[in-house]
Amino acid sequence: MRLHVLIPLRWSDFDAYAHVNNAEMLRILEEARIQAFWRPDEGIGFDTAILDGRPGAETIGLIARQEVEYLAPIPYMRSPIDIELWIGRIGGASIEICYEMFSPEGVTPRTLFTKAATTLVMVAAKSGRPVRITDSLRAVWEPYVEEPVRFTKRG
Amino acid sequence: MRLHVLIPLRWSDFDAYAHVNNAEMLRILEEARIQAFWRPDEGIGFDTAILDGRPGAETIGLIARQEVEYLAPIPYMRSPIDIELWIGRIGGASIEICYEMFSPEGVTPRTLFTKAATTLVMVAAKSGRPVRITDSLRAVWEPYVEEPVRFTKRG
Amino acid sequence: MRLHVLIPLRWSDFDAYAHVNNAEMLRILEEARIQAFWRPDEGIGFDTAILDGRPGAETIGLIARQEVEYLAPIPYMRSPIDIELWIGRIGGASIEICYEMFSPEGVTPRTLFTKAATTLVMVAAKSGRPVRITDSLRAVWEPYVEEPVRFTKRG
Amino acid sequence: MRLHVLIPLRWSDFDAYAHVNNAEMLRILEEARIQAFWRPDEGIGFDTAILDGRPGAETIGLIARQEVEYLAPIPYMRSPIDIELWIGRIGGASIEICYEMFSPEGVTPRTLFTKAATTLVMVAAKSGRPVRITDSLRAVWEPYVEEPVRFTKRG
Repeated sequence: MRLHVLIPLRWSDFDAYAHVNNAEMLRILEEARIQAFWRPDEGIGFDTAILDGRPGAETIGLIARQEVEYLAPIPYMRSPIDIELWIGRIGGASIEICYEMFSPEGVTPRTLFTKAATTLVMVAAKSGRPVRITDSLRAVWEPYVEEPVRFTKRG
Repeated sequence: MRLHVLIPLRWSDFDAYAHVNNAEMLRILEEARIQAFWRPDEGIGFDTAILDGRPGAETIGLIARQEVEYLAPIPYMRSPIDIELWIGRIGGASIEICYEMFSPEGVTPRTLFTKAATTLVMVAAKSGRPVRITDSLRAVWEPYVEEPVRFTKRG
Repeated sequence: MRLHVLIPLRWSDFDAYAHVNNAEMLRILEEARIQAFWRPDEGIGFDTAILDGRPGAETIGLIARQEVEYLAPIPYMRSPIDIELWIGRIGGASIEICYEMFSPEGVTPRTLFTKAATTLVMVAAKSGRPVRITDSLRAVWEPYVEEPVRFTKRG
Repeated sequence: MRLHVLIPLRWSDFDAYAHVNNAEMLRILEEARIQAFWRPDEGIGFDTAILDGRPGAETIGLIARQEVEYLAPIPYMRSPIDIELWIGRIGGASIEICYEMFSPEGVTPRTLFTKAATTLVMVAAKSGRPVRITDSLRAVWEPYVEEPVRFTKRG
């Protein structure tokens, strides 16, 4: 089971080659991740969106690693990019979030632009120490666990 | 043998947690990579800086993959970050650029904030087809080839 | 008559004070302006969206000036910001685009966060010379001309 | 008397037209402003750099308005942009910072790319209320007060 998040591109995501810039790509993935896993202010959102990201929250999610494969350059288009997210692994204090970024819904043929993964470690805001993922978080997320994204371009 | 590039941070690199944002990190690495490998406009720069990145160049470098390990959050500081770069591998049409990002020169103890790698594929601007790395490029870069960065946080 | 464009914020728009960064504000206005005035790729959009922004277009719009008044800091929220746009003036080769940026639809009381204006000059891509705005462009845009935004914080 | 701040551009400042993006321009001005007016972490910097910008500071500077005139597009170049800053006006709780952004030192002819002004209001971090600029701040800044930047493109 995967989550689908639609993220509109911005003109400012594009660099002097008229492609989505490699660093902006991570901003777009970040936005998808926040919609998928952070508690919305208005109470409407994905079931999985239960982390508390407000400044002042006791536990924060720090990014430990990211890996991105850029499979095709993304040209400017106005329809939102279609991002599939799932969880590749739930560890003691960390989760691995996996992404596949596709052309907008309805565009054929469907193109896979990007594959990526982010490892997020839960830490106590004050001490910076890892915090065990609770059973209730685990229960909410487990339906979305599947095989981690398979990278093919590692050296 | 490694290259050293000093990159000043910007206030706008910091996010609402007052750390360098994970995506901005790639902008900073990008800047180091450009200084290390792209031909400067004024003719002064690293020996390795011989790629032609101008719009209109026949061959362009596309990013095929990136991997980043965030080892310690980077607080605001005004002295430039000290980035070591080297080449992990020269393939037929691609190179792997490796980075270690350290605290500014003179700060003790020296902190390793980030490890990263970027795979760059040379392609013909018009056709998008991979272009073989010439012997002369290879000769310039070979002194900077050493073991690829060793990642420790892969799942 | 005004145009309404809804722009979702991104987490990366926020700076270390947890407010939308002053520069990111212009990226958000830029996005609204593009949706309002540039021709969409799919043929669906505002009547006013008739400029051709593709690389290779004969005429491009260069920004000559911008003015922004930041009336209230924008906190993180997930519902899209509600941006009203209109045209303050159509000159020989330029238009002044005016903006008022409000809290998301349905939020009460409605807050005016930002007032802004952008002067856009049409120039020939090759020569860089100003290009007269055609009568047909003028006819499409005239219904959206009203008093320019009134700034109150000039020194 | 003016301050001179040199800011290196980044490749990511450039947009799909291969010019410094209009919003990135404000990030560059922000960086110059911080170097000119915020206290450096290491105790070395301009005399004028006495504001405390750390999270947790009692008084923070909020941006009330900005105005920018884009006089010439900025092409990619590796030498740092030369930014002149001065103070256009010191009010009760606010200052107006003025900028002129020039081509790198030594490049002839010298080009004026951008003129800009930022109004900064000092407010108490907790209450958000304006805070009077102290006589000691005023004394430090007064030598840098001259005529505000003269804008010529207002409608």
